Amino acid sequence: MSRSYVHGRSDRESTRLLDQASGLGLLLHNGTTYPAGSTVLEAGCGVGAQTLLLARNSPQARFISVDISAESLARASERVSGEGLINVTFGQADVCNLPFRHGTFHHVFVCFTLEHIPDPLLALGRLKNVLRPGGTITVIEGDHGSALFYPETRAAHKVIDCLVSLQRQAGGNALIGRELGHLLADAGFVDITVSPRQTYASPAIPGSSEAVKRIFIAMIEGVREAAIAEGLSDTKDWDRGIRDLYRTTEKDGMFCYTFFKAVGKKGDTAPDA
Amino acid sequence: MSRSYVHGRSDRESTRLLDQASGLGLLLHNGTTYPAGSTVLEAGCGVGAQTLLLARNSPQARFISVDISAESLARASERVSGEGLINVTFGQADVCNLPFRHGTFHHVFVCFTLEHIPDPLLALGRLKNVLRPGGTITVIEGDHGSALFYPETRAAHKVIDCLVSLQRQAGGNALIGRELGHLLADAGFVDITVSPRQTYASPAIPGSSEAVKRIFIAMIEGVREAAIAEGLSDTKDWDRGIRDLYRTTEKDGMFCYTFFKAVGKKGDTAPDA
Repeated sequence: MSRSYVHGRSDRESTRLLDQASGLGLLLHNGTTYPAGSTVLEAGCGVGAQTLLLARNSPQARFISVDISAESLARASERVSGEGLINVTFGQADVCNLPFRHGTFHHVFVCFTLEHIPDPLLALGRLKNVLRPGGTITVIEGDHGSALFYPETRAAHKVIDCLVSLQRQAGGNALIGRELGHLLADAGFVDITVSPRQTYASPAIPGSSEAVKRIFIAMIEGVREAAIAEGLSDTKDWDRGIRDLYRTTEKDGMFCYTFFKAVGKKGDTAPDA
Repeated sequence: MSRSYVHGRSDRESTRLLDQASGLGLLLHNGTTYPAGSTVLEAGCGVGAQTLLLARNSPQARFISVDISAESLARASERVSGEGLINVTFGQADVCNLPFRHGTFHHVFVCFTLEHIPDPLLALGRLKNVLRPGGTITVIEGDHGSALFYPETRAAHKVIDCLVSLQRQAGGNALIGRELGHLLADAGFVDITVSPRQTYASPAIPGSSEAVKRIFIAMIEGVREAAIAEGLSDTKDWDRGIRDLYRTTEKDGMFCYTFFKAVGKKGDTAPDA
């Protein structure tokens, strides 16, 4: 996995991801707690945005949080220690090539990771291998096709499409949220539930439009140079699209986005991949 | 209001609308009940799809359900009587030219009506006039831009866009759901809340994909002839798009759609329009 991520690692991105986790924590983590004594693999912890919430919400569970990037892990570790949380162990690992024995974990948690992986089905198979029979996997991903806003302009959609295209070029899929149900089924998980988690922002709801700027628009802005370098946009169109996105956070504007959360179980007799 | 609706009045459409109301009843009507003794205007009741649910859910409230179409009213009345409901009175009226005195109603309910009206702000102003100070207005509308599905194809989006274009040509707005918040604010309502109500369908969820076929795809199919006659599509592209929509209800497919429900209050000192 030497390919580079489209987004997720710069300084501004780290801030964005931590903002994202705190602001969206309730929405995304609602329903996710792990029993005392259970061992949970967080696959693709990045800079620790979700790790903090996992560790706080299940203080009696033990988390093994892995990521491919040593740099991200260092930040995640610092952040988690800084909060006084002692139930997380970090380790460098490739989600598609995990250094754990079969059936090591009671549960697996994956958030904003499959979107970057060229073969999400392979990753899910590997995660199933290290999960105990009867254990659960929780997967959370966004889907940029869910962005619905007012005023709606073609220019705004085009800058979003630039990120979708760049992520696809890098082997990822920014529209993976809608696929979580069938991906878990195809990977052999059972008792699958999918719950869309939709955000609605407008200037009338305190803080909501600020979150759209900090989280969504900042993410799009992060690929400006790449989009222009790849010929997917030019300076003028790009700036118009970004301006139009900001406009959705003002006056009569609104912005909706849907995350998808899927939970599946490894059957008691599931064969390993 | 002599313009014709893009959809909503044929026999097949009546069935579709009744299906829609029963299947989506819980999702859309959750939170909507009216106190005993209150008088509620349902503006644009059509064939009575929502009327049934309103009357059942608030048996001690009295509903005045109006529509511009005598034919729709006859069906609505028959349906409501057939269910033994006695708390609804029907009347023919134009939402933008209501035959009621100012402050007649304790509450107003409007569902799938503003999408057909060229000047929704005018309609909301008229509805505010007949509402008592302190009374609420509840507005529910879909937004076809919220359709998110897998597999996603351009052909499928194009047939949806045909309906959006035809509805716009007829003076309506199939993307009005996202605008409910600012429309209520612009009309002078206060204490406005907007709650997106998202449906998620997949073959793994019993009945859900059937509902997508009966409700959403049937609605799109209803404008086939008009779309082709207007040159918005041709037979081949149309059939491909419809086939692709059906595909989202099969195998690994999924289909999401968001309705928007907005509630506002007429302030105690609100001036009439």
